[in-house]
Amino acid sequence: MMQAAPLPGRLYGVGLGPGDPDLLTVKAVKVLKSAPVVAYFAKKGRRGHARGIVDQWLCPTCLELPLHYPLTTERHFTDSLYVDALRHFYESATAEIAGHLDAGRDVALICEGDPLFYGSFMHLYVRLRERFAIEVVPGVTGMSGCWSVAQLPIAWGDDVLSVLPGTLGELDLTRGIEACDAAIIMKLGANLSKVRAAIRAAGRERDAIYVEHGTQAAEKVVRLEDKIDDLAPYFSLILIPGEGRRP
Amino acid sequence: MMQAAPLPGRLYGVGLGPGDPDLLTVKAVKVLKSAPVVAYFAKKGRRGHARGIVDQWLCPTCLELPLHYPLTTERHFTDSLYVDALRHFYESATAEIAGHLDAGRDVALICEGDPLFYGSFMHLYVRLRERFAIEVVPGVTGMSGCWSVAQLPIAWGDDVLSVLPGTLGELDLTRGIEACDAAIIMKLGANLSKVRAAIRAAGRERDAIYVEHGTQAAEKVVRLEDKIDDLAPYFSLILIPGEGRRP
Repeated sequence: MMQAAPLPGRLYGVGLGPGDPDLLTVKAVKVLKSAPVVAYFAKKGRRGHARGIVDQWLCPTCLELPLHYPLTTERHFTDSLYVDALRHFYESATAEIAGHLDAGRDVALICEGDPLFYGSFMHLYVRLRERFAIEVVPGVTGMSGCWSVAQLPIAWGDDVLSVLPGTLGELDLTRGIEACDAAIIMKLGANLSKVRAAIRAAGRERDAIYVEHGTQAAEKVVRLEDKIDDLAPYFSLILIPGEGRRP
Repeated sequence: MMQAAPLPGRLYGVGLGPGDPDLLTVKAVKVLKSAPVVAYFAKKGRRGHARGIVDQWLCPTCLELPLHYPLTTERHFTDSLYVDALRHFYESATAEIAGHLDAGRDVALICEGDPLFYGSFMHLYVRLRERFAIEVVPGVTGMSGCWSVAQLPIAWGDDVLSVLPGTLGELDLTRGIEACDAAIIMKLGANLSKVRAAIRAAGRERDAIYVEHGTQAAEKVVRLEDKIDDLAPYFSLILIPGEGRRP
């Protein structure tokens, strides 16, 4: 007698929030406690930040599936070798996850912040969504974590808030900051001195707050004007609050 | 012998997320289970949406402190009677909360979404921050909840994302949408037909997704082009995804 193929598993894209393990949602914890496979992105040779956040929440019998990026920031993203390597990586990660789903195992792909907000999860999601059932568990974004620890009301009433990647050119950054009331500049890293110049050109340096490792042990919050160097982790960010109407 | 005054309590601004009670963070649940006083905003005569979300999480012995808005959308926000009434409301809510804090009781002020992202919490925060210890617990924003249920990757790579209140004028909305890659238009309510015209003028109607009651039982996700009426709850929103670089 032939054995029926198993029902395919379900993929969960699970947002982990900004870093503090208590900022996972109740739903994220439930998924992590029941998923037989937990997948996560990590730099080669590293355990990965997402994996660190869930230490206390993982089911001890789950199978861990690390997905190692082929390279990091050494190559520019317009370099075709970089693009090819990244595409190949996403395709092989897709195949690994699909193998578990086809075998009937649910997979939780864990993501820092929110899965659909600048997340690597999206690259696998668009490759798997036609074939498998997928559920997305939203998370607290890194920027929410940062303005909360800075205790900075970020947008009021009719304020326009823009999220600007620090990878943009200086002029685009300046125009983007000028065009909104509240701004978040993400992905600082090596871009900080350029970002600082753009903020100054837009006349907003006095309001800008720099945050690194928000909600984590190494957390640092400082006015941008008081930060004397231009050293910044890639995931640090700058907050410029709105000043909208308030009674 | 005189009795020493109690140590003042601590105010927690607790983000509840987009509506699904399982989208509270673990930290929010901990604060709710230990806070002796739980305060929340509500329309006059209503229990309030925030209070509904935490039904299953409240400590049964906690004291509930509803803060009733004096009026809602009947008056325009530029009307000075509206501004005065709202200021008076925030001041009396501040005094009520300060009374509990002065008496040594911690107060959890619960907020839909994230407390510092267009939240009413901010109006009390700025009035209390000089006098009391305050902790902000970030939450999943309404927009994250909505793009997750729509399964819509919202921003990629170098995309600029802008959050635009639907209360803006049509021309400002059009310009705001044209200036970014991904847009969230919030606070729809009576503004939907104007917002729709602005999205059309910016050439983005085909990409726009309308979401109401995201993550809740009454959830509805529909392409804007397929939504035939202009009826929308105030907290519904429109998502226009970015199409940034992707390998």
